[in-house]
Amino acid sequence: MNKLALHKLSYGIYVLSTKVGDAPFGCIINTVFQITSEPAQITISCNKDNFTHDKIKEAGVFAISALAEDASPDLIATFGYKSGKDVDKFEKHPFQVGTELSLPIFQNDSVASFECRVVNELSVGTHTIFIGSVEECSVIKDDVKEMTYRYYHEIRKGLAPKNAPTYIEETPKEPKQRCSICGYIYDEDTPFEELDDNWVCPICGAKKELFTKI
Amino acid sequence: MNKLALHKLSYGIYVLSTKVGDAPFGCIINTVFQITSEPAQITISCNKDNFTHDKIKEAGVFAISALAEDASPDLIATFGYKSGKDVDKFEKHPFQVGTELSLPIFQNDSVASFECRVVNELSVGTHTIFIGSVEECSVIKDDVKEMTYRYYHEIRKGLAPKNAPTYIEETPKEPKQRCSICGYIYDEDTPFEELDDNWVCPICGAKKELFTKI
Repeated sequence: MNKLALHKLSYGIYVLSTKVGDAPFGCIINTVFQITSEPAQITISCNKDNFTHDKIKEAGVFAISALAEDASPDLIATFGYKSGKDVDKFEKHPFQVGTELSLPIFQNDSVASFECRVVNELSVGTHTIFIGSVEECSVIKDDVKEMTYRYYHEIRKGLAPKNAPTYIEETPKEPKQRCSICGYIYDEDTPFEELDDNWVCPICGAKKELFTKI
Repeated sequence: MNKLALHKLSYGIYVLSTKVGDAPFGCIINTVFQITSEPAQITISCNKDNFTHDKIKEAGVFAISALAEDASPDLIATFGYKSGKDVDKFEKHPFQVGTELSLPIFQNDSVASFECRVVNELSVGTHTIFIGSVEECSVIKDDVKEMTYRYYHEIRKGLAPKNAPTYIEETPKEPKQRCSICGYIYDEDTPFEELDDNWVCPICGAKKELFTKI
């Protein structure tokens, strides 16, 4: 059994968001798909350790911002690497409000957005699958591609090859950590060891102990 | 509400297969994601109109062949456009047998394969979500990318633009039909009108009446 096979599945990159009262919540996920066309329903999954997970259970609604290839790296870093328990993720990242459910949407960074009402859910171990009826959806940009996980991984986080004009010699730094499940590489300023024990892979939701030094 | 937003979600292209007794069954799907890492479980969805759907319910197991960018167009056409009720899809397409559950796998056309046991399911209107525990998985090719739905749509089925060196003037033919849900374009030899009423979009499972002439 070679679990690297799991890296061969195709994903996008999305901001999953919700709102309880006036307070917005959100995190990065890669698992969104359309499940039925009539009525339009989409399926998402979210790690139960994510703060946003509990807030979606509470609110019964969620929004998806389908990120564009030119989405702000800082938006991904904030919503992927930080917990809403610790920081106000939305402070630095102004959002728009959806027209149907008034949920937070990142229009500048997205190719499309969806506002959904939870109609069903299924608990599957560490994650919950939510089924959402699409109450409103919009195409935001047609001239930029949607960001795929592969693109994010290879183009946005990857180093330029030595023979490329953009190559810059890196100064040695802390060894990076790679998620053994989805291949995501942690390469942020905060040393990996100092991350909270509840921190999970921003892409696939794997726990810290599933990361290995590279 | 602009349902074209749903085309902005990212998908791969997969052969979903199973076996009842000695008889193999299979169809093309685009909805596969990893749901938990410990234990390794994946989620798929399948239209209830697909013959393969009922066979998975019966067998309790399924396999996924994650197609490569160089997968045979004929394999996709056969498993995407035809029903196992009408033709023996496997006759022309030799498969290998998985090492754990003896399920049909298309090694030559795939970057990875998975054999799964159904551990849970959720009925969602026209489709069923199956949760599978990964009993075995393999990386088949590392030198070819996994095929994404976008790639299939743009590169494999798309026409070259008029200013491209590869452009060839097309002879006029029957108007094509576009799936109003996922954007898939039907452009096969069999006239659209002659397709069985139970025929569904090979990519998203939408019914015939959701196609429009283009």
